[in-house]
Amino acid sequence: MSRKIITLTSDFGMKDPYVAEMKAAVLGIYPEATLIDISHEIEKFNIQMGAYILSAATDYFPKGTIHVAVVDPGVGTRRRSILIQTKQGFLIGPDNGVLSLAAERAGIEHVYEISNPCFMLPVISSTFHGRDIFAPVAAHLAKGVAALEVGPEVKEIDRPEFTRILSGKESIVGKVLHLDGFGNIITNITKAQISSLALCSQLDIKLSGRKVRLKFYKTYGEAKPAEPLAFIGSHGYLEIAVNQSSAAEKFEVKLGDKITVLLPQKS
Amino acid sequence: MSRKIITLTSDFGMKDPYVAEMKAAVLGIYPEATLIDISHEIEKFNIQMGAYILSAATDYFPKGTIHVAVVDPGVGTRRRSILIQTKQGFLIGPDNGVLSLAAERAGIEHVYEISNPCFMLPVISSTFHGRDIFAPVAAHLAKGVAALEVGPEVKEIDRPEFTRILSGKESIVGKVLHLDGFGNIITNITKAQISSLALCSQLDIKLSGRKVRLKFYKTYGEAKPAEPLAFIGSHGYLEIAVNQSSAAEKFEVKLGDKITVLLPQKS
Amino acid sequence: MSRKIITLTSDFGMKDPYVAEMKAAVLGIYPEATLIDISHEIEKFNIQMGAYILSAATDYFPKGTIHVAVVDPGVGTRRRSILIQTKQGFLIGPDNGVLSLAAERAGIEHVYEISNPCFMLPVISSTFHGRDIFAPVAAHLAKGVAALEVGPEVKEIDRPEFTRILSGKESIVGKVLHLDGFGNIITNITKAQISSLALCSQLDIKLSGRKVRLKFYKTYGEAKPAEPLAFIGSHGYLEIAVNQSSAAEKFEVKLGDKITVLLPQKS
Repeated sequence: MSRKIITLTSDFGMKDPYVAEMKAAVLGIYPEATLIDISHEIEKFNIQMGAYILSAATDYFPKGTIHVAVVDPGVGTRRRSILIQTKQGFLIGPDNGVLSLAAERAGIEHVYEISNPCFMLPVISSTFHGRDIFAPVAAHLAKGVAALEVGPEVKEIDRPEFTRILSGKESIVGKVLHLDGFGNIITNITKAQISSLALCSQLDIKLSGRKVRLKFYKTYGEAKPAEPLAFIGSHGYLEIAVNQSSAAEKFEVKLGDKITVLLPQKS
Repeated sequence: MSRKIITLTSDFGMKDPYVAEMKAAVLGIYPEATLIDISHEIEKFNIQMGAYILSAATDYFPKGTIHVAVVDPGVGTRRRSILIQTKQGFLIGPDNGVLSLAAERAGIEHVYEISNPCFMLPVISSTFHGRDIFAPVAAHLAKGVAALEVGPEVKEIDRPEFTRILSGKESIVGKVLHLDGFGNIITNITKAQISSLALCSQLDIKLSGRKVRLKFYKTYGEAKPAEPLAFIGSHGYLEIAVNQSSAAEKFEVKLGDKITVLLPQKS
Repeated sequence: MSRKIITLTSDFGMKDPYVAEMKAAVLGIYPEATLIDISHEIEKFNIQMGAYILSAATDYFPKGTIHVAVVDPGVGTRRRSILIQTKQGFLIGPDNGVLSLAAERAGIEHVYEISNPCFMLPVISSTFHGRDIFAPVAAHLAKGVAALEVGPEVKEIDRPEFTRILSGKESIVGKVLHLDGFGNIITNITKAQISSLALCSQLDIKLSGRKVRLKFYKTYGEAKPAEPLAFIGSHGYLEIAVNQSSAAEKFEVKLGDKITVLLPQKS
């Protein structure tokens, strides 16, 4: 029997003991786990950024991988804990949208509300469900427990506003999901939504109150140093970059900002 | 035979090659190791913060886990290197207090001074005992070497001042052990020491020269946004938090600051 | 058959999903991998710092370890992708110098230009060869593919200017390769190049336009608090430090700065 992969995503940072406690909770139940950190540097309480980072990474993991994500401002209140079975594997976390993008990309098969105490730690703190509920459930699942044993099936998951884009005749309106460490601006507008535009080799956008015309390139290296460009990033989303520099700084963009792609009009 | 878990805690940061070198030293001796990082973002040379982070995480690891901790301002001088056998597992590091809180929580059985060169790397640098002594000793222990082979048994470990709190009739005086990434203030005052007060549902404290009355809640979520609160954290210590904001900033607290809990007086 | 070790070094940071995607690409091909992060906090596009960090860590890994390093400002352009077989193991990455120091330390046996698409992901993005080429090649190699199958043998690797030092009768001129998290200044001048000087127990250097005389110690702890010192670091390079403080701040040094060691002159 091969060792199952369990990934962890959170806004806990790497300074505190919290991530290690989640791993300890997994290893106490399922010592064979291959534990992989996706990111623990999600901006505190930023569900949208957590949802993006998780969805970007999940594509590449083998079938059957179990992903745990904890960006959880409502811990200890009435928000549900869920396990989503997708066509690719499993997603575990609070039902606040942090799992939504990854779930949609992978294709949802079933959603269960986690409620069976057999698969949690014996004492549940009010502040740390990552360690006390999500990590143990992941470990039990890896060990062979069936998804439907964790609790009753539910119909719907929370789909926050950032999962939707507004597509009209004159424009497509999306949001800035993430600013990566290179200063690239990653939006929630997908390749499919602007595929016809890409052929034009240029793109008119509105961002931070400015109207900008960008060249469409396949990679940073095609642009001159310091030249801004648009391209489809390796996860299939529209990205704005500046070759060897920070687009986030150049365009003074913040997480969650609106981005408008202006469609060419027949004259 | 199952793979042994070896955890690493240090003030090395994640930018430098030092953590990887410790892992390489382990894997060269015991390739089956399950290596888990607890934290490498301990404030440089801050033994007290290292001791807290280590003790917070160790509780949750399975029996037999081997923990290596390196916050070591005295490396290359005469401070001892020790291996502590506890009721839960093993602690390895310099004898400067960094292992003390975790050792007390787990229950000390034996302490050995590491001196047997058979279990160290062939060349010992004067500046990096984490790689040259502590990691190899951990790997040999995982591989089956008995604890008493590493060196002579010793009676006492260094117990720095931060491991003690001052408990009187009018007040309990402790210290700020850690400020976590959410801005929560974590003290060295334990649940047991204030258990009667917790029933009162409020707490009078002195912190950074200010007297503050705080509500006692079970979780952040019970407080209003921006409301400060006291609660017993998931590791059993008194914590001060502000719901969805930073208590460390609000109360202008630094690591090591004094915190006084005022006991209710019969009038 | 034992599990092969694959290490990862990059300038991706730990916030973004990129490192996890590389690990996912490895695990999809070779699920038994022991994955070790060397550092992902290389300064963006700083090939020289990446080369140093990689070479510092590689020494300690067991024979046969496969190291992947991605600091790759030229991704998507014509720079080659290479696999270097050394006396110690394998190095995989762009041919821009990032592998050069580690390759020289380990001893180069063969260099291959990676070009065989069988060992890459089916779709190659223009911006992320770490995930699409380097990680899969590492996984296939770990799984048993022979090095020479990845592509044609080539004669030379890129050896940038930072791999050379200028040694004359009056001075040795090197560069600052790295400033570590403790503020230690790490140069590219090796133990062998100044071994005779070390006996003098003091060293005259020029750094940031200043001439400084430093004592030569074996370890920080021998110096007084705040005293600057020179020593041979645990990787065999000349380092400048300040005991329990930051030499990088004291001497206002930046990555890549010139450092001159003045040789004693017969009078």
